[in-house]
Amino acid sequence: MNLELVDKHRETLQKAVQALHNRTFFAYYPENPSPEVYGETADKEGREKYKNFLNNKFTELLQQGEKAWAGQEESPYEQQSLGVKYPFFEPDTLISRAEEAYHQWRKVKPADRAAILVEALENLKSRFFEIAYATMHTTGQAYMMSFQASGPHAADRALEAIAAGYEEQTRFPESTEWEKPMGKYNLKLNKTWKAVPKGVALVIGCSTFPTWNTVPGMFASLVTGNPVIVKPHPKAVLPIAIVVAEVQKVLQANNLNPNICQLGVDADDRLITKELAENPKVKLIDYTGGTEFGNYVESLPGKTTFTEKTGVNSIIIDSVDDLDKVVQNLAFSVTLYSGQMCTAPQNFFVPETGIKVGGETVPYEEVVEKVAGAVTALVNNPKAAPHILGAIQNPATAERVKSASSVKGREVLSSCDFENPMFANARTCTPVIYEVDATEKESYSRELFGPVVLIIKTKNTDQSIELAKEMAMNFGAISCGAYTTDPAVKEKIMDEMGLAGTPVSFNLTGGIYVNQNASFSDFHVTGGNPAGNASFTNPEFVIKRFTWVGFREPVMG
Amino acid sequence: MNLELVDKHRETLQKAVQALHNRTFFAYYPENPSPEVYGETADKEGREKYKNFLNNKFTELLQQGEKAWAGQEESPYEQQSLGVKYPFFEPDTLISRAEEAYHQWRKVKPADRAAILVEALENLKSRFFEIAYATMHTTGQAYMMSFQASGPHAADRALEAIAAGYEEQTRFPESTEWEKPMGKYNLKLNKTWKAVPKGVALVIGCSTFPTWNTVPGMFASLVTGNPVIVKPHPKAVLPIAIVVAEVQKVLQANNLNPNICQLGVDADDRLITKELAENPKVKLIDYTGGTEFGNYVESLPGKTTFTEKTGVNSIIIDSVDDLDKVVQNLAFSVTLYSGQMCTAPQNFFVPETGIKVGGETVPYEEVVEKVAGAVTALVNNPKAAPHILGAIQNPATAERVKSASSVKGREVLSSCDFENPMFANARTCTPVIYEVDATEKESYSRELFGPVVLIIKTKNTDQSIELAKEMAMNFGAISCGAYTTDPAVKEKIMDEMGLAGTPVSFNLTGGIYVNQNASFSDFHVTGGNPAGNASFTNPEFVIKRFTWVGFREPVMG
Repeated sequence: MNLELVDKHRETLQKAVQALHNRTFFAYYPENPSPEVYGETADKEGREKYKNFLNNKFTELLQQGEKAWAGQEESPYEQQSLGVKYPFFEPDTLISRAEEAYHQWRKVKPADRAAILVEALENLKSRFFEIAYATMHTTGQAYMMSFQASGPHAADRALEAIAAGYEEQTRFPESTEWEKPMGKYNLKLNKTWKAVPKGVALVIGCSTFPTWNTVPGMFASLVTGNPVIVKPHPKAVLPIAIVVAEVQKVLQANNLNPNICQLGVDADDRLITKELAENPKVKLIDYTGGTEFGNYVESLPGKTTFTEKTGVNSIIIDSVDDLDKVVQNLAFSVTLYSGQMCTAPQNFFVPETGIKVGGETVPYEEVVEKVAGAVTALVNNPKAAPHILGAIQNPATAERVKSASSVKGREVLSSCDFENPMFANARTCTPVIYEVDATEKESYSRELFGPVVLIIKTKNTDQSIELAKEMAMNFGAISCGAYTTDPAVKEKIMDEMGLAGTPVSFNLTGGIYVNQNASFSDFHVTGGNPAGNASFTNPEFVIKRFTWVGFREPVMG
Repeated sequence: MNLELVDKHRETLQKAVQALHNRTFFAYYPENPSPEVYGETADKEGREKYKNFLNNKFTELLQQGEKAWAGQEESPYEQQSLGVKYPFFEPDTLISRAEEAYHQWRKVKPADRAAILVEALENLKSRFFEIAYATMHTTGQAYMMSFQASGPHAADRALEAIAAGYEEQTRFPESTEWEKPMGKYNLKLNKTWKAVPKGVALVIGCSTFPTWNTVPGMFASLVTGNPVIVKPHPKAVLPIAIVVAEVQKVLQANNLNPNICQLGVDADDRLITKELAENPKVKLIDYTGGTEFGNYVESLPGKTTFTEKTGVNSIIIDSVDDLDKVVQNLAFSVTLYSGQMCTAPQNFFVPETGIKVGGETVPYEEVVEKVAGAVTALVNNPKAAPHILGAIQNPATAERVKSASSVKGREVLSSCDFENPMFANARTCTPVIYEVDATEKESYSRELFGPVVLIIKTKNTDQSIELAKEMAMNFGAISCGAYTTDPAVKEKIMDEMGLAGTPVSFNLTGGIYVNQNASFSDFHVTGGNPAGNASFTNPEFVIKRFTWVGFREPVMG
């Protein structure tokens, strides 16, 4: 049907499939928000467009007949309502429309679906700046992260899902002639196979990464033929609403039902996620958020679920070449977006006997001081700090950071309010650091979301590894950073954290951080521990969204 | 480590991977038990070896220190005990040995693991005849099916699993250099990835296909680095015990712990399956058998499960060219191994208005009579019938067939004892046929395991399709046969049964039957309905057995 679009995007899709397998650096959407890349006026226009959304109804969606208008977003920078209202639909309405759209969308060939979805991403590119401002003022991310994470990085993750889904659905022939020698004659069958999509898909978004964590599941379900209902977090709707609107426009332009991809927001007085999730018509659920709700989602019978819940991420410090560079790198990692990332490190394991630095032993206490010193230097740097810390999305996070009273340990560095020079009302806080003994397991056995660092004093690196592994296996982990100059220790960490399903970044210094995660190269939450099984993007992420069904018939004549 | 073996089996593995993707006819192990293929004396020797097992301890396993000897197999042909005793181990012993073996096996490269497993299959080839007799006298299958299903067909399914597992684990690079342009410099990371196996795997066998249904999961878990405990059905141990012994021998010959693959039989007075399944160390479970126990297996938290439960398979008759050929084909399908196959058809949907035969309408009643007539002719053919029917594995099945009193309908054809000329004591019965009205849904909404056929009188083909789909979606289906000369009806059946995740064979006549399922071509139980998600062998069958974990480190210098 969409021959033109298929031609138009064939090369992009092929490149993306190849990149999945090379796993070398690949980025289709430029991450630099510079005028040379996106045009002189792109930023200014994006900002204006964002402002035009404020205190208005969001009317871009092609969904008809809303029951009400709802919206409760609030800027963490301005601590006031955005005033954007979105059309509200009853869960039953969303699901029956999705069911209807399913029977159209499932019949579109995988190659056509992929082309339509790439077209939507291409159109989205012109809206990265609007999305960036929408992301800033819903999540509290700083400008650069808002642009990159919600714009190009999210679009790359979406492209990755499209590519993986396209590849998996076309990995087996559509038809073949099967001819079996039977001695006196040959038995001939015509065989065909279909990748049958599972049905209505629900994608449940989170408040901190409203597009980055939503588009992979959304595009993965779409490319495999499933209609999608995107249920954003009520506090972070606008960035993903723009994405859904762009997908709907391309669907309509290709004479397809825009309800193939719907936005389903909560009403102001009624949260609809559970109603949607429990509906037997909903077969696929992607979820990002807290562990408790994530476990509920995973427990629902008859659903295929993809989750990204919480984790307890560790840093293991054994031996380093240059301690200053190491603590600077770590200080950035815990300060970035005030620790509100699923990949942010929390538990720093440091041996009580100290660590080796270029062959010399540096005592434990000095390591602790250096970490605290690096964080202090960073948050006191007025040129850097506001662009790294951003603001705090949820008031509860700020509360937690300022009164982490449940941690049994010494406060090494207190959190303080941080004045943002651009936004006088910004909700902010800087990282707090506690020192905790390895025996105080309860204190470090859970995620303390936000900029909270626990330095855990261990007997030695073996114990550090053992505890980091135990935390990951029991409570989940999405990232791990390790510093060692000893190949045997490195090997051991790889082996033990590998068993805990946790990716490890070794010896990071300079401009690369444990929090970062590259599309087309780094697998993300692959299912080896309780942090979830989102699995961006390995084959599992897409093949569980459809069923192979075969048909056969004797060859006539 | 096993360079020689890797070289030896490279071509086999490559051919198998290619066959997976071509899905044209491919069989690595010849299905014809003829002397030209397997040698003049192979059958005779196999029979003798089988006889030597009887009333003896099975001492081929390399597992040490058994707690007791146990065995309760009984020949359905002779209705007497085989007297074979197997070493019994406590579940805790099996699991702690598997855990220990895990840490050796997981470190063996996928290519080496694949080569070791292909070597085991190659050695197994010389034992196909023993296995055939062992299968006959545990399952009641006739000789030819025993040989084919338990020998070459099972080995092909095992090879398929090895090939798929090898391919999926090597689809992404082991390592790569990731280089990101940062403007003034390039950021360089060395990245590596590991496919980390999930842990101890349990494979729970069934009584009717002790190797065919066990080896796919067993070899899939092994090739992906997981140690396996095979828990056979207590009534069908010998065929799979021989397979496990052959795997253990190859492991030992390659200086590996034979406990990488263990046989764990029930004690005579204690069934150990639940104890094994519920142990938190067990991460993967493959299961074939009844729905109730299968649902229990699927409900266990923290496990990845692959199931083949029961289903209600349908035949939809709309229009045919030659009714005699059709009913002959169907008569064979319901008679083959007395209907004790997961792919055997049960519910025949026939419109009350009759069907079109070569353009002429044949009344409903005549279709029913023809089906019954064809079954009668087949079971009364002394040259064919014993070789098709075999014997009844479980006395409860014979009971059910002879007194299917819960079916509300007219008995069209009674089941009768059938005298097997070779085995005077064989437990046998021939197919029973009932005529049931479409309104009597309760009668046909469940699997009546064994040779039970229900002819369901529908309003028209649309209703036939609707009911077949409903049965599959609600109660599962593993196969479906459909007869139509109308392309629009065919299209509709493909669409509707596709949504029910059920493969359809159209217009089968002659020497190919709906029950048959070809390795390397037909996907089997792919998860689209409640019959299970075994998914022989699409990528899902292997990738869920390991986790991708990545490691990265800045490039030095």
